[in-house]
Amino acid sequence: MKNIKWVFFDIDNTLFDSRGLSTNARKNAVKAMIKAGLNTKFGPAFKKLLQIVKKYGSNYPGHFDKLVQAYKVKKEERSRIVAAGIVEYHNTKFRLLKPFPGVKKTLEKLKASGYKLGIITNGRATKQWDKLIRLNVSKFFDIVVISEEVGSEKPSKKIFRTALKKAKCRAREAVMIGDKPEDMAAEKIGMHTVMFKGRNFTKLINETKKIENKK
Amino acid sequence: MKNIKWVFFDIDNTLFDSRGLSTNARKNAVKAMIKAGLNTKFGPAFKKLLQIVKKYGSNYPGHFDKLVQAYKVKKEERSRIVAAGIVEYHNTKFRLLKPFPGVKKTLEKLKASGYKLGIITNGRATKQWDKLIRLNVSKFFDIVVISEEVGSEKPSKKIFRTALKKAKCRAREAVMIGDKPEDMAAEKIGMHTVMFKGRNFTKLINETKKIENKK
Repeated sequence: MKNIKWVFFDIDNTLFDSRGLSTNARKNAVKAMIKAGLNTKFGPAFKKLLQIVKKYGSNYPGHFDKLVQAYKVKKEERSRIVAAGIVEYHNTKFRLLKPFPGVKKTLEKLKASGYKLGIITNGRATKQWDKLIRLNVSKFFDIVVISEEVGSEKPSKKIFRTALKKAKCRAREAVMIGDKPEDMAAEKIGMHTVMFKGRNFTKLINETKKIENKK
Repeated sequence: MKNIKWVFFDIDNTLFDSRGLSTNARKNAVKAMIKAGLNTKFGPAFKKLLQIVKKYGSNYPGHFDKLVQAYKVKKEERSRIVAAGIVEYHNTKFRLLKPFPGVKKTLEKLKASGYKLGIITNGRATKQWDKLIRLNVSKFFDIVVISEEVGSEKPSKKIFRTALKKAKCRAREAVMIGDKPEDMAAEKIGMHTVMFKGRNFTKLINETKKIENKK
């Protein structure tokens, strides 16, 4: 019998390059806005947008509105320039939204080796499901635990405990794989953890085996 | 000198098949939700969705949430099924969003004949601009007048007067083309109107000529 029964994953920057996607989408959006009439150079406009994202948070829906306001765009031009940014932002995101290389093969192998797979992620429920569906990986996961539904975010112990309870799994029989310290907090309740910051997803199979062999 | 100087258009169901698009997107969304686990048949679920859209209005953002609630989907299944609907809804919309046949050719011909072109539309500014950009027709229009920015919707006279003022054009030198009585209300201030309900956009050139010849 295996020592490890469940392997849990974070989504953003673990299954796909969320950060790179946002950066590219924002860059292309700024270029489209300049082409639509935003009277500035790319460099300072992109820097300004990043400041706005930082100030208002990444889930704030009016980043581009704040950008045209910052550049004192005439009222009658604003919606056209903002819409040009929104269209290009979404087109870029949907075009580039793909799992890291090796993700599907690795999930398939883990499943074939008898592991159960789960997601433990922070975020809004439909938004996180939207990503799993568009990445075409939702079928791999036996359970999906999202902070909005639990009412508690990583690194709090509650969200990890909720996932284990749903999985009917003991902490020491589970691995949490993610890219952030908040994912590594799973250790506090006795889960194994693997920090995954790179892109070579297939290495995870070795990591899982190493944990098996430690036992 | 021409008697008609400006030709104004509505967007939805005039430049593209907005109604057909929504219908197809909603149908595909319901199918995706059933595939994702919504336990019902397509016919009644689609009918229920249309009732929800009617009750809460087409701009309400939670139609699919109301649908899963109506079918008493378990809480932990809801976000997955709703996300499946949202993804399919958007994919269908972006795939099918195209101008009616002949739109671009007609707009090009009207421009080449010396007419100025404009938009007079009801709706949210960035959303209406989003459509013009995705339809790839925004370049044809010299002015775009949107109800949200005017603070007044068709059929009120104010939005037509605002458009004429921006265009520096007399009412009798302008045509309004649209699919609804609200567009025909332009007559009340002396504009010419053409009701366009079909799909054969190229006929509009004849309509414009007819108005010229009447003079």
